[in-house]
Amino acid sequence: MAGNPERRAALVDAGIDVLAREGARGLTFRAVDTAAGVPTGTASNYFTGRDDLLRQIDARLHVRLAPDPAVLGDLMKRPRDRALVTAFMHDLLARATGDRTGYLALLEMRLEATRRPELRASFTTSVRGDLEDGMEFHREAGLPGGDETVVVLYLAVLGLLLEHLTLPGVLDGVLPGVGVPEGLVERIVATVVPENSDTPPAQTPAGP
Amino acid sequence: MAGNPERRAALVDAGIDVLAREGARGLTFRAVDTAAGVPTGTASNYFTGRDDLLRQIDARLHVRLAPDPAVLGDLMKRPRDRALVTAFMHDLLARATGDRTGYLALLEMRLEATRRPELRASFTTSVRGDLEDGMEFHREAGLPGGDETVVVLYLAVLGLLLEHLTLPGVLDGVLPGVGVPEGLVERIVATVVPENSDTPPAQTPAGP
Repeated sequence: MAGNPERRAALVDAGIDVLAREGARGLTFRAVDTAAGVPTGTASNYFTGRDDLLRQIDARLHVRLAPDPAVLGDLMKRPRDRALVTAFMHDLLARATGDRTGYLALLEMRLEATRRPELRASFTTSVRGDLEDGMEFHREAGLPGGDETVVVLYLAVLGLLLEHLTLPGVLDGVLPGVGVPEGLVERIVATVVPENSDTPPAQTPAGP
Repeated sequence: MAGNPERRAALVDAGIDVLAREGARGLTFRAVDTAAGVPTGTASNYFTGRDDLLRQIDARLHVRLAPDPAVLGDLMKRPRDRALVTAFMHDLLARATGDRTGYLALLEMRLEATRRPELRASFTTSVRGDLEDGMEFHREAGLPGGDETVVVLYLAVLGLLLEHLTLPGVLDGVLPGVGVPEGLVERIVATVVPENSDTPPAQTPAGP
């Protein structure tokens, strides 16, 4: 395997562009070489195969879509209330919509995972890890609500991102006066997350 | 355009199989002919082009994934409470997971819509129409919660279907004792939908 880290990163980013633009089936080593503007055959020196390329794309998207530690640090100075959860969700949405190509590539990877068991296994591990990290973060930060709150919030925001990035006209104006995605994420948090950590969500029955 | 309705339906269903199995980029008239087991060139007698085929696939998936009127009729005899909303969501999930190929084809269509303005326009109209129908149904049936409840519930169930159909291992067991998708949809409804129609959701601020 060739070892030039800058060229490897450029090839992985080119792979992300190809995924978002052409779909998973368009992701060939040749298409990556072309998108990166390197000689045909270069990608095959950097990746053992398509599953390896997809795994490196997943790892790279984790970096591209990760929160800015300085932003997180500022947010963590605030009271641990529902407004802070909203601020975290705004930050998450801003990252996903700000790197639309990256997020669309993640959605393509999900569909490709239905066809490729090896990708499904590695991608499941990374997405599950993110969700468990989110649950642990919520608990340790003392944010309102519990694991169930985090899971429901995660699913609603996942749905919001899928809808907003693929068919934005579906949500635009559907609730009068509620902007999309910012206004809608506030309504999601207000619906899903209890007002403060001392009050369990009024509507959630006690677990068995 | 050729007019044999059974052959047309078979070609559209073959197109759905190709979309789910190969991804949007694999959806060519030739692939549809092959999947339908008809002579090469047949699909081009039935569709004016790829956008026309995609529009007919969308229409056909509406039929395939539609609720059974008999099931709906039985459900509508029950009290208009949160348990009924849960039952509707169970029915929706059962349809989507029961026609996994059809639902995966819808997800492929979303990603293809990011690349094809004509598909984006027609698909937006049909998905927006479904959401508005859902809001109207909820209001007219007197189910608990308002338009905002329906939108947040819609997004959470959209996220659940995306996750469960593409990376099922992410949600399996993430909340101990909560089965996926059935148990999780109960938790989503319990979190998002108020207990009965007289009680507005405690956590939702009044609109502007």
